[in-house]
Amino acid sequence: MTLLLGVDNGGTRVKLLLAREVGGRFEHVRTDDAPTPRGPGAMDELAVLTRTFLAGDRADAFGITVAGILDETSGVVATSANMRWLEGLAPARELSDRLDIAGVAVQDGVATAIAEAVLGAGRGADDVFVLALGTGIAGAHVVGGAVRKGAHGGAGEIGHLAAGRGEKCTCGQSGCLESLLGGTRLGARWDRARGVDASSTALDVVLAAERGDGTARAILDEATTALAHSLLSVMAMIDPGVIVIGGGLSNSPTWIIDPAVDKAHRQATFHAVPPIVRAQLGTWAGAWGAVVTAGHRMSGERRLERTETV
Amino acid sequence: MTLLLGVDNGGTRVKLLLAREVGGRFEHVRTDDAPTPRGPGAMDELAVLTRTFLAGDRADAFGITVAGILDETSGVVATSANMRWLEGLAPARELSDRLDIAGVAVQDGVATAIAEAVLGAGRGADDVFVLALGTGIAGAHVVGGAVRKGAHGGAGEIGHLAAGRGEKCTCGQSGCLESLLGGTRLGARWDRARGVDASSTALDVVLAAERGDGTARAILDEATTALAHSLLSVMAMIDPGVIVIGGGLSNSPTWIIDPAVDKAHRQATFHAVPPIVRAQLGTWAGAWGAVVTAGHRMSGERRLERTETV
Repeated sequence: MTLLLGVDNGGTRVKLLLAREVGGRFEHVRTDDAPTPRGPGAMDELAVLTRTFLAGDRADAFGITVAGILDETSGVVATSANMRWLEGLAPARELSDRLDIAGVAVQDGVATAIAEAVLGAGRGADDVFVLALGTGIAGAHVVGGAVRKGAHGGAGEIGHLAAGRGEKCTCGQSGCLESLLGGTRLGARWDRARGVDASSTALDVVLAAERGDGTARAILDEATTALAHSLLSVMAMIDPGVIVIGGGLSNSPTWIIDPAVDKAHRQATFHAVPPIVRAQLGTWAGAWGAVVTAGHRMSGERRLERTETV
Repeated sequence: MTLLLGVDNGGTRVKLLLAREVGGRFEHVRTDDAPTPRGPGAMDELAVLTRTFLAGDRADAFGITVAGILDETSGVVATSANMRWLEGLAPARELSDRLDIAGVAVQDGVATAIAEAVLGAGRGADDVFVLALGTGIAGAHVVGGAVRKGAHGGAGEIGHLAAGRGEKCTCGQSGCLESLLGGTRLGARWDRARGVDASSTALDVVLAAERGDGTARAILDEATTALAHSLLSVMAMIDPGVIVIGGGLSNSPTWIIDPAVDKAHRQATFHAVPPIVRAQLGTWAGAWGAVVTAGHRMSGERRLERTETV
């Protein structure tokens, strides 16, 4: 038996998860969360929180998520837009020194993808593609419980494949999925189509569509066509066993997920359409991903399962 | 030291390659080729050819290529458009029974990709994407010497990602790379643009462009724009360490490869552009791929190199 600690160090809250790994299965022991420690003393404060949470238990290893760009080799945070105090630090080493427990840092999106692939909606498949639909659109190809990062750490950029017509994207290209479906872009496109300056959110667009707003529906229709197109690209290039869709926008099955999946099925020609399912682990996915990553480092295991759902 | 036999059983000629693997390196021993045995007695005849080629040498294992669709589990040829007599047979087992040597079958495109990645233009990189530009356009992502086939054997279909405007593809979609750059499509598009019915080949189009034909140049320009677009898609999704371009159309650097690579560099935004290089092994790539595949089966080695160039 191995006792593993997951620390999901988010911009607002830090989530702590203690889990037990027995014969490749993960079991929930307990959880807690607290406001994220901020500023220069953040790592000291996080160590105190963690020690209190562990109480008498001795974790064999921990994983900590990083909301930012992580240098894989050194474990140092290169940039973190919302947590500037982490920049230049190696959070796993900092916490490891204070707790005297071996630790590993993992980028938060990677942790979420690993958790969904291994323990969540992709459980049981060896080859899972996970999409996160939020302000940005990210993808991760998880094979045997590890994310394929590519030769320069850039793999899985499903948000920046061409998916539709001509809309200029923040990445410098045109017609990317993110330019048509990214959270803030949906709101901005709806505002522009109506000629208003309202800083609408994706939720506003979905609620308007729900109320019967034709402009909102047309914009969502274009966005889900683009998503369907991108799902077909994933099938053609990666051919995963399962596609998992998470992120804030996945909370609208009616206006986002179902139409996109339906279009993907109708437009598929040679493609092997795998199960396309919504993410299951919700807000605890990051902490579970940190646990799984720590477990992998301990055991060298490639495939792991969890018996208990959070 | 391991002695390995590669049998590249092509539609016209069968190529035989004997190689020696020493400490993970492959060395050429000798080669031969002959007209491909055809019809019901083909496997008997192939066994005779192979035994003669081996003479007194005892190969530890062989690999045999299959020009068709191979059932991965059984090793049986499902379909082979140009070699119907192989359908329903397991060529590796057939040859293995006759030679009393362990053998493995590998689809010919897979063998070529593995050879280019491990021994050819991708040598030294762990993560290589190989494109074959011919009548059809195929791709293979080679990681640690093995092709990533996906959950249903369909991964790497770079020819059927959307790459340009609206041209109907044989796969049922529109705007695929293959519909704009595939060998027969290039000729057909040039004929159509000129309003003639000449069954032109891709080579005809390239030669016409060379002579200054504006229509041919415009068609190649559109095709190389589509190829550049697809290269960027590979970088975004896979992020390989090297991209290798082979197949008949790669023999025109001036009109196909160089313009596409140039456009990919100019259009790249966030992408990590890896070295994009032409395939090196030429017509012996399939036989080398069969050798490498046989070697992997023998040793479980993941990365191998060859010291000698054929």
